[in-house]
Amino acid sequence: MRGVIMHAPGDVRVEDREVPAILEPTDAVLKVAAACVCGSDLWPYRGVEDVDGPSPMGHEYVGVVDQVGDEVRTVKVGDFVVGSFFASDNTCEICRAGYQTHCVQRQPGAATGAQSEYVRVPLADGTLVATPGQPDPELIPSLLAASDVLGTGWFGAVAAEVGPGKTVAVVGDGAVGLLGVLAARQLGAERIIAMSRHADRQALAREFGATDIVEERGDEGVARIKELTGGLGAHSTIEAVGTQESMMQAIRATRAGGHVGYVGVAHDVALPGEELFFSGVHLHGGPAPVRRFLPELIQLIWDRHIDPGKVFDLTLPLEQAAEGYRAMDERRAVKALLTP
Amino acid sequence: MRGVIMHAPGDVRVEDREVPAILEPTDAVLKVAAACVCGSDLWPYRGVEDVDGPSPMGHEYVGVVDQVGDEVRTVKVGDFVVGSFFASDNTCEICRAGYQTHCVQRQPGAATGAQSEYVRVPLADGTLVATPGQPDPELIPSLLAASDVLGTGWFGAVAAEVGPGKTVAVVGDGAVGLLGVLAARQLGAERIIAMSRHADRQALAREFGATDIVEERGDEGVARIKELTGGLGAHSTIEAVGTQESMMQAIRATRAGGHVGYVGVAHDVALPGEELFFSGVHLHGGPAPVRRFLPELIQLIWDRHIDPGKVFDLTLPLEQAAEGYRAMDERRAVKALLTP
Repeated sequence: MRGVIMHAPGDVRVEDREVPAILEPTDAVLKVAAACVCGSDLWPYRGVEDVDGPSPMGHEYVGVVDQVGDEVRTVKVGDFVVGSFFASDNTCEICRAGYQTHCVQRQPGAATGAQSEYVRVPLADGTLVATPGQPDPELIPSLLAASDVLGTGWFGAVAAEVGPGKTVAVVGDGAVGLLGVLAARQLGAERIIAMSRHADRQALAREFGATDIVEERGDEGVARIKELTGGLGAHSTIEAVGTQESMMQAIRATRAGGHVGYVGVAHDVALPGEELFFSGVHLHGGPAPVRRFLPELIQLIWDRHIDPGKVFDLTLPLEQAAEGYRAMDERRAVKALLTP
Repeated sequence: MRGVIMHAPGDVRVEDREVPAILEPTDAVLKVAAACVCGSDLWPYRGVEDVDGPSPMGHEYVGVVDQVGDEVRTVKVGDFVVGSFFASDNTCEICRAGYQTHCVQRQPGAATGAQSEYVRVPLADGTLVATPGQPDPELIPSLLAASDVLGTGWFGAVAAEVGPGKTVAVVGDGAVGLLGVLAARQLGAERIIAMSRHADRQALAREFGATDIVEERGDEGVARIKELTGGLGAHSTIEAVGTQESMMQAIRATRAGGHVGYVGVAHDVALPGEELFFSGVHLHGGPAPVRRFLPELIQLIWDRHIDPGKVFDLTLPLEQAAEGYRAMDERRAVKALLTP
């Protein structure tokens, strides 16, 4: 089969690889219907994170179950499934509390890399969710989005305690931030302020439910949010970048007693204790427990209530994966979908 | 009248001062029945915080209303009242959300210093709560505790989402930590692990409801908490110190999806973003909105359901305030009560 390997920063190749086999009785192997390039794949691509030798890439995936181990019960060969980027047993105390990304058995969900024709998924029962039937092709991008970026934006909104009557600010206009806007709308937010300075992303943010756009960043961005909220700040802020600037922007844009949901993978962030203390905000986030939300998100997509697949503005055959990375790195694309 | 002035680190004097007068129509002046020395008073006393010239001290107080401004409606001359260390209007949007310490009109509650015979309190209607009648003298220490340390420990427990069935860890065995234990018990925690290496404080922690004591600190303390919780960590951790070590201890002692309520005033704390991100905990805290809890706490004390006044293990006449500071600084006393 063919699959993506990153050899070094900037060096992504599609190569011949072994088709993965069942290793544990709880494994499944999927024939991948679609995969994609994640914003977090750009960290090693840009050399911000180390590349430890040739690495199979991709952790977002939808596909058809091709093989299952002897102990797999909830999905069967032929099912179309959506999985999470972390595998979880979905039975431990942490999973039952809704934190499957911190499962006591947590391990990578796409164990052999999802940017590939086939992928092995461990703990299949606790990680995969089958769709109600074989999806129409036009639903596939949205189902793929549920695997990570939608689930992550959704968790950001849930962590920020978005709800009816609230004003929500969204820091970050990548796929996760844009889908944070969509989640905030679905969760009933009254006002959704997207922070973006790119016309195309602003347009998509508005389509997903943003009521206001703030182009300013940093202290000026915070000042604009305060202006829009009677001087108080947002009730809920979704942070979807992961830098020091974006985290401080999120904390400062939020009123005392409000909630910051942060889902941008933190890089070189140090939060000043005194400022955080006197801010009075709630802070929650981390790697999104996508599995918690999958049944609900799949249904919303299946019923065509939401169309998160719109974040894919570039679709390429798997063989052209390197162009997908380049396009996202150069910000020519929000998110690239790869079809094996 | 007599009142406490801090002139420099370590230099606390009781001096003749002007009796405060009503300045704003929303002010009240109280005849102080009891005041005390706060752990946070030790920061300037120890030179960790600057002392900006001679400073009137004390922000915890109970007393009898002596004068009120023309616009004061909810308390009247002769009422026995408990106040918060921050004055709040209790009507703005932030107050109505329960965050009175971040009131848009926030200012010091004991404007002229509470370690004194009289004190002026601004925004009296939004800051003071009258007791159901004149209290028996033995209730005064507990009512005084409600003014700050109990309210703060209580907020720590609320911020940590303490509740039935949960295991709670408490970092810090000062008055706030000990009253965090009491709060956790009142809020229905199943198991309460107090972290303390002082026999007298351990005894009080047990009296307030601690079910386990952990003497180890830092990584060893975290390892003990994990041992006691099936490897997962506490559901809820109350942080009542405010140092880098105590904050990291609290975060690391808490399971993913659990809650850290931090009420120790942060000093030189920088939270590493990556570790926080992957911890999956909720973080909330800051200066406690004591006013939110005062009606409930006063009633619990009035009905003799709780006895938080036990944290005062030293009672001195106001004239001997300097000895109260010394005793707390040298850890000879948990908390010193001063009677004018």
